[in-house]
Amino acid sequence: MSDATTRITGVDTYDIRFPTSRELDGSDAMNPDPDYSAAYLVLRTDDPGGAEGHGFSFTIGRGNDVLVAAIQALRPHIVGRDLRALCADPGSLSRDLVGDSQLRWLGPEKGVMHMAIGAVVNAVWDLAAKRAGKPLWQFLADAEPEWLVGQVDFRYLEDVLTPDQALAMLRQAVPGRAGRTERLRAEGYPGYTTSPGWLGYSDEKLTRLARQAVADGFTQIKLKVGADLADDIRRCRTARAAVGPDVRMAVDANQRWGVEEAVHWTKALAEFDPYWVEEPTSPDDVLGHAAIRAGIAPVRVATGEHVQNRIVFKQLLQAGAIDVLQLDAARVAGVNENLAILLLAAKFGVPVCPHAGGVGLCELVQHLSMFDYVALSGTTEDRVIEYVDHLHQHFVQPVRLERGHYLAPSAPGFSAEMWPGSIARYTYPTGAFWAADALAQGAAAQQTARTRTPEATP
Amino acid sequence: MSDATTRITGVDTYDIRFPTSRELDGSDAMNPDPDYSAAYLVLRTDDPGGAEGHGFSFTIGRGNDVLVAAIQALRPHIVGRDLRALCADPGSLSRDLVGDSQLRWLGPEKGVMHMAIGAVVNAVWDLAAKRAGKPLWQFLADAEPEWLVGQVDFRYLEDVLTPDQALAMLRQAVPGRAGRTERLRAEGYPGYTTSPGWLGYSDEKLTRLARQAVADGFTQIKLKVGADLADDIRRCRTARAAVGPDVRMAVDANQRWGVEEAVHWTKALAEFDPYWVEEPTSPDDVLGHAAIRAGIAPVRVATGEHVQNRIVFKQLLQAGAIDVLQLDAARVAGVNENLAILLLAAKFGVPVCPHAGGVGLCELVQHLSMFDYVALSGTTEDRVIEYVDHLHQHFVQPVRLERGHYLAPSAPGFSAEMWPGSIARYTYPTGAFWAADALAQGAAAQQTARTRTPEATP
Repeated sequence: MSDATTRITGVDTYDIRFPTSRELDGSDAMNPDPDYSAAYLVLRTDDPGGAEGHGFSFTIGRGNDVLVAAIQALRPHIVGRDLRALCADPGSLSRDLVGDSQLRWLGPEKGVMHMAIGAVVNAVWDLAAKRAGKPLWQFLADAEPEWLVGQVDFRYLEDVLTPDQALAMLRQAVPGRAGRTERLRAEGYPGYTTSPGWLGYSDEKLTRLARQAVADGFTQIKLKVGADLADDIRRCRTARAAVGPDVRMAVDANQRWGVEEAVHWTKALAEFDPYWVEEPTSPDDVLGHAAIRAGIAPVRVATGEHVQNRIVFKQLLQAGAIDVLQLDAARVAGVNENLAILLLAAKFGVPVCPHAGGVGLCELVQHLSMFDYVALSGTTEDRVIEYVDHLHQHFVQPVRLERGHYLAPSAPGFSAEMWPGSIARYTYPTGAFWAADALAQGAAAQQTARTRTPEATP
Repeated sequence: MSDATTRITGVDTYDIRFPTSRELDGSDAMNPDPDYSAAYLVLRTDDPGGAEGHGFSFTIGRGNDVLVAAIQALRPHIVGRDLRALCADPGSLSRDLVGDSQLRWLGPEKGVMHMAIGAVVNAVWDLAAKRAGKPLWQFLADAEPEWLVGQVDFRYLEDVLTPDQALAMLRQAVPGRAGRTERLRAEGYPGYTTSPGWLGYSDEKLTRLARQAVADGFTQIKLKVGADLADDIRRCRTARAAVGPDVRMAVDANQRWGVEEAVHWTKALAEFDPYWVEEPTSPDDVLGHAAIRAGIAPVRVATGEHVQNRIVFKQLLQAGAIDVLQLDAARVAGVNENLAILLLAAKFGVPVCPHAGGVGLCELVQHLSMFDYVALSGTTEDRVIEYVDHLHQHFVQPVRLERGHYLAPSAPGFSAEMWPGSIARYTYPTGAFWAADALAQGAAAQQTARTRTPEATP
């Protein structure tokens, strides 16, 4: 069989949910009981080598089935595609998906449909990098600037970023690529950790985990805030005392505040020298972020994990509304749109510190930051990738950290593949875990019913 | 059975699609082949009077099933609700749906999940108005200002609109309500028509339909633009010649342009005195709209049918980015969020000219404009509701127009209910129309296969 004829033959989808609301420490001011979940897909092919592409959207439980339905709605655009053409130009599929004139009505370019497109597009990049035998960061960093620019949709961006400007930035970075690749392989990419800072920890646990983070080599930690001001003041004081004055301490409000409340609350925490305040208000409020930033300087403003697309990032940068851009690998329309976002950040000189955690977000996003370092911004200064120690064991190629740094992945692909056993166990609601859970809950409910209303029992 | 115990007992959903891409004239520069569709729901109750609530999201075909799945994901919040409590405070459900901490991750407050919430919330308002025996516009216009303010979620709005300010505006309108209700019932609410202006009409047909619109009493028409500038110049010249200098002529680009292109293109049409340019660029680009408005004055900027929520409308108003606010009844989270948007527009003194057309959007949105006239802005000056003569026959209470004016509905409810026969016929893919269509297409494909490859036939 000639390689020229291999095609995408199927899109298998999985509704995978982990019961983290019972087991994990992931609650914040807006998300009290997340069940970290993945709307997961596998692109099947008839490649004789068995090539597959893996991708997913991250959600926090309910609604994961809606995302699976959205991925399935994209299937007619995918099945039958020529594998070689697709991997040579993932942007061709990205454009078809974003541009579907009927599906577009459900956004455009936002929410469920956009996240589904991101999952599919990322799976294509996983496949393309695997076929090239390279980890995604290297696949991107080795690419010609002209080809990378061709992967970007500049629609609605050209008032601030043209293809020529993007090309110039990428070309300028070419001479330093080899040296930075070497340095990346030797030293890794700096991370920071949110582990000490979840709401509801005792001061003793906060102190212990904050000290542990410093001992592990992290130079930045993050605390969740926004539920109660007096608590936040005490927790920030506790954390600052634990880590000392030189470790950066970010705070994260998870969209809890209005504009004026954000300014007031952040100022009340200013004495503890927070490095940035993250998601102070709605991710849709560009002008609100600009007003907050003006009101709380020199504390920095960071946002991005819920920013829906490149057009909102463009405005956050235009308006001088953010000091730190927190792109997410699985919120926007995949690698192609994240290339646009990295280019926008580079144009404005704003550091990118990606959002991670959840299910597999660390695994994905490291590739984007490493590409940015090697082949675009050329620096890791003031740049850190979030790290949370959750659920990595379910991935075939989990992230590896040393001395607070992400080590550069070496396996081909986008590190998106989960173990078959994990998929089988946590598929909702039929996987072994959830089936057993439903049985146990049914038994408990029956027990309760018997206890409460014995007169109703025949 | 006491009324106090009646509850919502079920949420029935329907994927309804009309084959408008084959039959209708609804194409524009971004939507060449829409199949106008509704993700439709019925709230069932155990009310002895048989009360039901009807609502829907409008889509243009593919992905309508994804919206149905999203509505189904909301079911646990709805079934079992006490009917009296729900109808006395629809905002209680609205807050629970928007605030679901897990579903919120799929937005927040945008795209598929938000549209699904809008469909459900609108169905509750249909039910509440029916139980009160009033058309929705009157149900709202008769309500106490304090109660109306309690229906609005002010989160992320308070930097520009506080509950006290909203209350003051509503109270100020109370004395004139009776007089305006009388005038509304006598004269109706002004409309405008898009019928002459679809892309692809011959100049002769454009001229004929434009003259017909004026003869029908419309004082404003709208033309689709954005595909080809030379064509647009010719069509605008033709339309202006047909209607004369005194009829307003809006143009609609359906998001086709970037910022600079929008300014250039609109200026090239300026000699034909366009009243507004609609959706010149991405609905997400607040700063882009502001730049376009500055560049094309005195031509007005209008947008809103794809604006995802009150937070983006807030910014469009803050930034001075729009002259005309085009709210949509089925894009945001239903009546509650549209109350917020009407209050924002009133605060800034920007006229609301709702988007309509599609499936049932005229039926819904008339209620919001009529409430605004009677009980909030107090005026119809420079305000018009879009009218398109599509698919009204499928609704039990279709809109009625006379002399270019929407007549005030008198039947109780939100005018959202479709005929059972229409639902049955156009349910996708099992309804009579689609089942027959699939058979016909199968037969045609078989015929083609026989003709093309006779040697493959056994």
